[in-house]
Amino acid sequence: MIVILKPNATKEKRDQLIQKIQSLGLSVHLSEGEHTTLLGLIGDTSAIDPAKLESVEIVDAVRRVSEPYKLCNRQFHQEDTVVNAGGVPIGGGYFTVIAGPCSVESEQQILYTAERVQAAGARLLRGGAFKPRTSPYAFRGLKAEGIELLLEAKKKTGLPIVTELTSLEHLDLFNDVDVIQVGARNMQNFDMLWELGKCKKPVLLKRGLSSTIREWLMSAEYICAGGNPNVILCERGIRTFETETRNTLDLSAVPVLKKKTHLPVLVDPSHATGHADLIIPLAKAAVAAGADGLMIEVHPDPVNALCDGAQSITPDTFDKLMQQVRAYCALENKVCE
Amino acid sequence: MIVILKPNATKEKRDQLIQKIQSLGLSVHLSEGEHTTLLGLIGDTSAIDPAKLESVEIVDAVRRVSEPYKLCNRQFHQEDTVVNAGGVPIGGGYFTVIAGPCSVESEQQILYTAERVQAAGARLLRGGAFKPRTSPYAFRGLKAEGIELLLEAKKKTGLPIVTELTSLEHLDLFNDVDVIQVGARNMQNFDMLWELGKCKKPVLLKRGLSSTIREWLMSAEYICAGGNPNVILCERGIRTFETETRNTLDLSAVPVLKKKTHLPVLVDPSHATGHADLIIPLAKAAVAAGADGLMIEVHPDPVNALCDGAQSITPDTFDKLMQQVRAYCALENKVCE
Amino acid sequence: MIVILKPNATKEKRDQLIQKIQSLGLSVHLSEGEHTTLLGLIGDTSAIDPAKLESVEIVDAVRRVSEPYKLCNRQFHQEDTVVNAGGVPIGGGYFTVIAGPCSVESEQQILYTAERVQAAGARLLRGGAFKPRTSPYAFRGLKAEGIELLLEAKKKTGLPIVTELTSLEHLDLFNDVDVIQVGARNMQNFDMLWELGKCKKPVLLKRGLSSTIREWLMSAEYICAGGNPNVILCERGIRTFETETRNTLDLSAVPVLKKKTHLPVLVDPSHATGHADLIIPLAKAAVAAGADGLMIEVHPDPVNALCDGAQSITPDTFDKLMQQVRAYCALENKVCE
Amino acid sequence: MIVILKPNATKEKRDQLIQKIQSLGLSVHLSEGEHTTLLGLIGDTSAIDPAKLESVEIVDAVRRVSEPYKLCNRQFHQEDTVVNAGGVPIGGGYFTVIAGPCSVESEQQILYTAERVQAAGARLLRGGAFKPRTSPYAFRGLKAEGIELLLEAKKKTGLPIVTELTSLEHLDLFNDVDVIQVGARNMQNFDMLWELGKCKKPVLLKRGLSSTIREWLMSAEYICAGGNPNVILCERGIRTFETETRNTLDLSAVPVLKKKTHLPVLVDPSHATGHADLIIPLAKAAVAAGADGLMIEVHPDPVNALCDGAQSITPDTFDKLMQQVRAYCALENKVCE
Repeated sequence: MIVILKPNATKEKRDQLIQKIQSLGLSVHLSEGEHTTLLGLIGDTSAIDPAKLESVEIVDAVRRVSEPYKLCNRQFHQEDTVVNAGGVPIGGGYFTVIAGPCSVESEQQILYTAERVQAAGARLLRGGAFKPRTSPYAFRGLKAEGIELLLEAKKKTGLPIVTELTSLEHLDLFNDVDVIQVGARNMQNFDMLWELGKCKKPVLLKRGLSSTIREWLMSAEYICAGGNPNVILCERGIRTFETETRNTLDLSAVPVLKKKTHLPVLVDPSHATGHADLIIPLAKAAVAAGADGLMIEVHPDPVNALCDGAQSITPDTFDKLMQQVRAYCALENKVCE
Repeated sequence: MIVILKPNATKEKRDQLIQKIQSLGLSVHLSEGEHTTLLGLIGDTSAIDPAKLESVEIVDAVRRVSEPYKLCNRQFHQEDTVVNAGGVPIGGGYFTVIAGPCSVESEQQILYTAERVQAAGARLLRGGAFKPRTSPYAFRGLKAEGIELLLEAKKKTGLPIVTELTSLEHLDLFNDVDVIQVGARNMQNFDMLWELGKCKKPVLLKRGLSSTIREWLMSAEYICAGGNPNVILCERGIRTFETETRNTLDLSAVPVLKKKTHLPVLVDPSHATGHADLIIPLAKAAVAAGADGLMIEVHPDPVNALCDGAQSITPDTFDKLMQQVRAYCALENKVCE
Repeated sequence: MIVILKPNATKEKRDQLIQKIQSLGLSVHLSEGEHTTLLGLIGDTSAIDPAKLESVEIVDAVRRVSEPYKLCNRQFHQEDTVVNAGGVPIGGGYFTVIAGPCSVESEQQILYTAERVQAAGARLLRGGAFKPRTSPYAFRGLKAEGIELLLEAKKKTGLPIVTELTSLEHLDLFNDVDVIQVGARNMQNFDMLWELGKCKKPVLLKRGLSSTIREWLMSAEYICAGGNPNVILCERGIRTFETETRNTLDLSAVPVLKKKTHLPVLVDPSHATGHADLIIPLAKAAVAAGADGLMIEVHPDPVNALCDGAQSITPDTFDKLMQQVRAYCALENKVCE
Repeated sequence: MIVILKPNATKEKRDQLIQKIQSLGLSVHLSEGEHTTLLGLIGDTSAIDPAKLESVEIVDAVRRVSEPYKLCNRQFHQEDTVVNAGGVPIGGGYFTVIAGPCSVESEQQILYTAERVQAAGARLLRGGAFKPRTSPYAFRGLKAEGIELLLEAKKKTGLPIVTELTSLEHLDLFNDVDVIQVGARNMQNFDMLWELGKCKKPVLLKRGLSSTIREWLMSAEYICAGGNPNVILCERGIRTFETETRNTLDLSAVPVLKKKTHLPVLVDPSHATGHADLIIPLAKAAVAAGADGLMIEVHPDPVNALCDGAQSITPDTFDKLMQQVRAYCALENKVCE
C-alpha cells in the first residue's frame, strides 16, 4: 500500500503517521520526490482500511499495490479449484452446464424441464423457489413448495439442484439443496456470506449489478474466510448506460478472473441479456472466453412463464445450444459431457 | 402500457395475444401504422410484467406509459407525507438533519457526539451498530452493544435514533430504535422490505448504488404495500465511471422525486463523496435542490475512526455546516430548528 | 411514436397539439385510459425530435416505437451489406482480420509488421499516423510521413490500409488510403461524418466510449444519408465503473447489431481490454458472438512501442491468435482465409 | 509514479527496467516487500505513458501518484484564474451567468432573448450557430448566418457572445466571437484543442459525456500548453444508467475542481437535466456547491424551439431564476451583478 502525502505535510506530522503505521506491525519505506512524498507500507495490509488512512490530515491519497483478498487469490494458490457440486465437478478442465426454469411453477413443469435439459447435457438443474422481484405486485415464487418440487426432480433424474437463497431465515429449507445460489442483489449481503462460510455446501456467487471484480472477489473471500472454500463465481452482466440489453455481459471478466483467482467461473447469458435470441451466441462466446460453464434459463413454455419469460429458451433451443457449445468445448479442450 | 408488434406478426397470432391480454381484465386499443402495429393496454397494468409480454413471439418491445408504483405516487396522493420520526417531523416544509458517527465505538464517543450534534441543531442521532463491510477482515460494528449505547445516548439527550438493519434476524434488537435504516446494499432485499412493511416504524430507505429512481420507488412501494406508509428516501450517490469521489451524488434526483412521490427525500453527502472537505458545499446544494433534510457523518476523532474516517467531519465542522445550512433553509422557507 | 399526456391536460390544449402534429403530415390515434391519455403518431417520425414534443406543456413523456434510422435499418434492407475494402470483402459470410501497430513508427517497423500479419492471415493493415492522445505531452503520430510509410507497406505487401482521420483538414492526405477510420472520440463528430458521406471510401466507424447502440447507428446513418453506404461498425469497449480492463467490451452488441442493421460488425479487443493477455480469449469470443472480423494491434516490440504498448501483441502471438480464430470460424461457417 | 512488479520478476529483468527508466531522466527507488516489489519513479513523469510501462513483461500494474497536468494544476498556481470574457470577468469571486437560446433561429428571436436575459442579469449571450445533432435529419443550425445574428445582438445589447465551434474549418467565422465553446462531444478533439491553444480567445470547455475529471483537466492542459491560459470549465452532466434525466449532473465535480485547478468552473443545468422544471433547483444548487457561474438555455417560445425545447426555460422563468440565484450568491459572497 502506498500513502501519498500532501505537499504541505510537516516532518513532525509525517513522523507521527509513520510511527502509527509501524505500531500496526508494518514497515514503512519513505520516498521523497521533488513534488511528492510517499510512504510505502510493507507487510500484510489486508486489514488496513485505505479510507481510514485517507482521513489523516496530511494524506492526499492511498493506492493499493496488492489485492486485499488472500484465500481466493491465485497468487497464493496456483491450481484451479474444482468444486464438487453434488457429485458434479465444476472448474479445472470441466465445462459444466446448469439449466432450468427461472421459477419452479409446477411439478409437471419442473420434471419435464429437468428431463429435457438432462437429455441435452446439463449436469445440474436450476429453478427459483424464492424469487426476488422488483415489484411487490409480482409473483415471488412457490417458496418451500418450490424446493420440494426441485428435490422431487432431483430424485427422478439424479441431477443435483441449484436454487437461490434470498434470506437467511429460509436456510433450514436448503439442507438437501446441492448448490446455494447467492443472487446479484445479495452479493454484498455480508451477513449471508458470513453464514454461508460456516457451511460446507457449494455456493454459487453471482456478480452484483454494479460490483467491481475486486468487490466480487472480496465477497468470495468472506465465504472462504468463514471456512467454506467451495465458491463458484457467476458473471451475469453489469449495469451500464446501454438499454438494448437488460445488462451488459462483461465477458472480459472471465479471463481477468482466471488470472486473479483459482475459483471456477460460470457465465449466465440469460440474465445478462434478457433476450432469448442473444443467448446462443453469448453462450458460445463464454466458452471461447474461457468460462468453466454456463447457467441457462430453460422453460417449456416461455410465453406463459410466470417470471422472466423473455429471456428463457425452449428445450428445443437448448438442445441446439448444447450441440454448439460442445463443439466449442472441443476446441478449448474442455470436458463437456 | 404499449406493446409494439414485430412487422411479420400474423393477424391470427395478434388476435390470440389480444384475447390473452383481455383475459387479464385489460382493454386493448389496436393502432396500425405503415411499418408498425401497436397495442395500447388500458387498465391497471401495475401487476403486468413487461418482460413476460416481450417473450411473446410476435412482440418486438413493450413501453410503460404509467409508473408501476401507486401508493407512493404523487399522482394519487398530492400532499407531502410528513413522517413522525420519534416525535420529529420529516418532510412537508421541515428540514431535518440526522447526524452521528458511522459506527458506534464506545459510550464516550457516542455520548459526546450526540451532545455536540444536538447542540448544533441535529434532530436525530445516527450511528451504526451492524456495519456492512466489503472486507471480511474489517471491523463490523459493536452489534447489540452498539444499539444499547445508542439507546443510552437517546436517554441522555432525547434525540430519536436511526440505525441500520443488515439482516432480519437482528430485528428484535430494534424495538426501541426510532427509525430503521435500510442501507444501499439492501435496497432490493425484498424479504427485508416486505417484513418492514408489517411494522409501523419509520424506514429510511437509501438508494442502491446502481438503482434507478423507478426501482427505488418500487422498493418504497414494497414497504407501503405491506401497510407501512412511513418511508423516508435518502439519496447517497450512485456508481459511475468517475473515481475522484466515492460515488456520484445525484442531486437531480431530489427535484425528480419531489415530482414523482409525496415521500420525504433526504441527502447523505458523506457516503456520496467519501471526502470530508466536500460535505459542506454539497450539504448546502442539497438544501438548494429541495431536499427535506440531511444525513451527515460526524466523528469526534475522524483519524482514529474505526470505519469510514475519510468522510466524517468533526463536531466543530458540523457546527459550521449547520450555520450555513440554516441560512440556506431560510431562503427556501424550510423550518430548520 | 407515443405521446403520453399529463393527467391535467385540457381538451382544448390536447386538440391544439393534435392539430400541430397533423400539420407535420402525421396521423394521430387518441387512446384514453383511466389515468393516462396517449397519442399514437402514425407516419414517418424520423425527423421528429422527441425532446421538442416533451417541451409541450401538457406532454408528460414521449416513447419511440420505431428506430429513427432507415438506411442502415435491417427492417428495410434484409441482406447483409458486404463492403469492398480495397478489394477485400467485409461482411456477409467473410471473417476479415485487420492488424498492425497502434502507431506507425518507422519504415522498418511497419514493413516488418505488415509482412508478419499478412503471413498469419490478416487481410488489411492498420496503423495510426494521426494519434489522439489524452496528454498534450505524449507522442501524437508521424502524421503525413506515417501515411507515406503505410502506402509503402501497401505497395510491398498488397495489403489495403486502414488509418484514422482525426480532423477533416487532413482529409487530402487520405486519397490512397483504403478504409478511413473514425475513432471512438469522433463517433459524434457530425461534421466529419457528413463529409465522409460525400466520398465513397469505406468508413470504419468505431463505437463511442459512452454511445448507445442507437446513437452509433444514427452516426452510421449520417454517413449513409450523405450517399456513402460503405460503413463498417467496430465495437471497441464502452466506459463503465469497472477498472480492471481499460473499457468493458460489449460483445452482446454484436448479435444485437446483426438484428438491427445489415452493416458489417468488427470487434477490437485490443482497445477494449488494454491488456495483451486478454486479446486471444476475447478475439475467439468475438467470432462466437457472430462478428464479421477483428481489428488487432500487433507490434514487433510492444515494450518499446511509442503508444499503447500494453495492449499490443507480438507477431508470434498473432500467429497463435489466427490459428485459433480460424478454428472458430470453421465452426461458424465463416470464410477466413 | 509507482511500478508494481510481478512476483516472478527476475533480478536481471528488474535491473534492465530500472536502467531504462533512469535513461529517461528519472530516479528509481526500489522497495521490496514480502509479496510485492515496487519501483518508485522520482522526477517529472508527466510525459510517461503508464500503459507503456504496463506492457513490460515483468510489470503487473502502474499507479500514478501525482496529477499528469501542470499548467492548470492549483498545486503550482494557487490563485484563482479570472478569465476576461469580452470585458466580463469569470472566476475569482464573480458569479457570471451566460444565457440564451440553444440555437439562433431568427433576428427577432435572438434580439428579444438577448434583451430579456440582459435585463434579468445575464452577462454573456449564448446561442448555437453550428449545432451537433444526433440525427442527420434534424436541424443543424443557421451556421454563418447564426453568427451574424449573434454579432448583431452583441452590437445592440453590448453582451459578449459565446458560441460553439464544431469543426476547425469554421474557425475563421469566430473572429468576433468573445468566447469559443468546445462542446461535450469535442472535449477530446485534440486537434481542435491544440489549435485553440494558439489563439488567446477564452475557451469554454464542456465536460465530455463520459470523461473523468482528470481527462477533462488534461484537455484543459492541451489548450494551456499551446499558450492560451483562458480556459473556463463547464460541467454539463455525465452519462449514467439513470434515464429520468438526460444526463446526471455531477455537482460534486465543482468542489473537486476547485481543489485541483485554478480555472473557473461553470455549471449548465439545462443540458444536464433536459427538463425545464429541474433547472431552477439545480441552478441554485450549483451556487451552493461553489460554481463560478451558470450557462442557461432561455427561449421565448420553448414549444416551437427548433432544437432542445424541452430543456429551455422562458424569459419569465429566467427572471425568477436570477432573483433566486442572486440571493444564493449573497450567501456565498459572490459578486453577481
